[in-house]
Amino acid sequence: MGGVKKVAILGSTGSIGRQALDVIRTLPNELKVVALAGNKNLALLQSQINEFRPMMFYAPGEPEISYGGEFLSVEEIAGHPEVDLVIVSTAGKAGLSPTIAALQAGKTVALANKEVLVMAGEILVREASLNRAQILPIDSEHSAIWQCLHGEDNKPRRLFLTASGGPFYRFSQSQLAAVTPEQTLRHPVWKMGKKVTVDSATLMNKGLEVIEAHWLFSFPFDSIEILIHPQSIVHSMVEFTDGSLKGQLSSPDMRIPIQYALSYPQRWSNSELPRLDWNKIDSLNFEPVDYARFPCLKAAIDAGRSGGTYPAVLCAADEVAVELFLSHRIDFTDIARIVKKTLEQHKNIAQPSLEEIVVADAWARKCATKLSADYCKETEHSRNNDTGS
Amino acid sequence: MGGVKKVAILGSTGSIGRQALDVIRTLPNELKVVALAGNKNLALLQSQINEFRPMMFYAPGEPEISYGGEFLSVEEIAGHPEVDLVIVSTAGKAGLSPTIAALQAGKTVALANKEVLVMAGEILVREASLNRAQILPIDSEHSAIWQCLHGEDNKPRRLFLTASGGPFYRFSQSQLAAVTPEQTLRHPVWKMGKKVTVDSATLMNKGLEVIEAHWLFSFPFDSIEILIHPQSIVHSMVEFTDGSLKGQLSSPDMRIPIQYALSYPQRWSNSELPRLDWNKIDSLNFEPVDYARFPCLKAAIDAGRSGGTYPAVLCAADEVAVELFLSHRIDFTDIARIVKKTLEQHKNIAQPSLEEIVVADAWARKCATKLSADYCKETEHSRNNDTGS
Repeated sequence: MGGVKKVAILGSTGSIGRQALDVIRTLPNELKVVALAGNKNLALLQSQINEFRPMMFYAPGEPEISYGGEFLSVEEIAGHPEVDLVIVSTAGKAGLSPTIAALQAGKTVALANKEVLVMAGEILVREASLNRAQILPIDSEHSAIWQCLHGEDNKPRRLFLTASGGPFYRFSQSQLAAVTPEQTLRHPVWKMGKKVTVDSATLMNKGLEVIEAHWLFSFPFDSIEILIHPQSIVHSMVEFTDGSLKGQLSSPDMRIPIQYALSYPQRWSNSELPRLDWNKIDSLNFEPVDYARFPCLKAAIDAGRSGGTYPAVLCAADEVAVELFLSHRIDFTDIARIVKKTLEQHKNIAQPSLEEIVVADAWARKCATKLSADYCKETEHSRNNDTGS
Repeated sequence: MGGVKKVAILGSTGSIGRQALDVIRTLPNELKVVALAGNKNLALLQSQINEFRPMMFYAPGEPEISYGGEFLSVEEIAGHPEVDLVIVSTAGKAGLSPTIAALQAGKTVALANKEVLVMAGEILVREASLNRAQILPIDSEHSAIWQCLHGEDNKPRRLFLTASGGPFYRFSQSQLAAVTPEQTLRHPVWKMGKKVTVDSATLMNKGLEVIEAHWLFSFPFDSIEILIHPQSIVHSMVEFTDGSLKGQLSSPDMRIPIQYALSYPQRWSNSELPRLDWNKIDSLNFEPVDYARFPCLKAAIDAGRSGGTYPAVLCAADEVAVELFLSHRIDFTDIARIVKKTLEQHKNIAQPSLEEIVVADAWARKCATKLSADYCKETEHSRNNDTGS
């Protein structure tokens, strides 16, 4: 098998997992799937296993997966000797323990799960350094920064994370309050999972990315800036100390940063990946972000600056609030309120252990759920749909 | 003096030479001027010599320069053991022989004179390779490409040279014919010398840059594309085989690429250099170039593709035609006509020697001058000004 990279995908049935398999399908001489792990969509996982015939797999509960690969836990897969690179594309805190297992085994982790770095960035960076493991970003913004930093010896002056601004960037506060989940899930540019699509609309996603950038590139928060760039063509930029900037551009297609994480430090020719067509790009717009209208963004950056268990609390409260919004129980603008109140009630622990982070996460979920009672409404929709409540 | 780079500037009184001295002035611990060479503006050269006290200098004719540095030819300066890096910022073919002298002596050449590479690219690249010398670009577009390629192992798919389009990009043919030298010299973005400002308006400059890029990055002509980008913020871009692009951005200030050529492979912090202010940038526009309206561009690329002595003939004919335009003897649109006709009359020599290039240059000047008689007019302006004719 020579130089073939042996890849494990944790979260293979999600949006990033499926796109990673699309990339791998086109590069049979470079990449081989040795493990797949899914969670909710077992039918899809079954068909992925049938196609890629990995030597290991994980599925929750009693696995009914018929292919005879070895059934292992995600942590066992992440640290398995037959794995070169682990794609962690599970959502939320589920990615935490396999990521740590992979780093402790000295693996290269291609990380699409931003909550993992946000919750436990300090621990992850330490484990990577102790075990000579690597954390490679899959997020398009961080991939862009990483690509722009490649080959540069000198510390840059600033990072510019670009943000599409989401579908509601020009909305007034009252318009924002009236936004529905259905509107929110129609993201103008990127095809993503539901949670991250809502987070993109509140700009919580960009706040999480600032924290992620802080840990990935050991960059101070004061030097990370956000530019609203509606076209999502320039995925982020780096400004150097000599006044020069580099930016990375591409079609907004996640397969491009996914492949870069898999090919690094090389680039692989792939005619399946879309090329930018300058005949179709009229202008690229940029403007500094308006923090005032998107309180989730500021809450996230403040939590990142404060450190400790705050970022984990931020993530957990946001997950609860987004879930309530998606089930029509709270307004779009309540998401920020619930997150902010949960953070206010939290007693921070500096330099927390993994256990303390997990405890803070559980506390935050309870607290956010309790706080949300003040905002929850029994809507027509919830009456019709939440028959169990 | 430790790691101080010892710099010779050939053409120190021109636009690039003066800006190079601006950079050097701000970095006394990194850079030292050891030689200055001027041509027309002897008063300025005198004052530069007084300020920087170089150990060597050159001025044409009987030098009346009072400072006691050694008087040497530009070729002697370019190859002098005390020189680490030679900035070649002379105009036109005057840069040819000192550039070759510098490369033969194994020096690093920071090249601002594009005619040199256009006329004798093959020879220069060969001399650099034979003598382990380096050619570093100063042109903002080539500096951008060079920065974007830095650290990348894999050959890119395409280069995108950006072009402001000059002041007349939207002009009709009849509007172009009526353009005056005074209008032409008011370039909307860059502060440059007269010749290059006219070349920017005809897009000849962009054509020369395509040829330059071909030689600097050993890139086929078919993979070099031009994008009109009026704001001159993105100085050029590279597209890789995985669909990802990198672009380099900065304020349109030549001191930035000049410093990069001097600091390479490092970057030096310099607070004198302007920073991009995203509050002042509304949009960046891009469109594929319209070759039909700018025949100089196509003539240049065709000459580059044909190779041999054609590029030298192109440069020489253009120099003659631009001079005639600047002295109000021909119309703006006649520049392309004269260049094209001269090229048509030329008998190409493949893989020419330096001598053959010099002969072709002289032939082209004569031919272009002769051909221009058909277009020359005795204008009000020329009657008043050209008292010697």
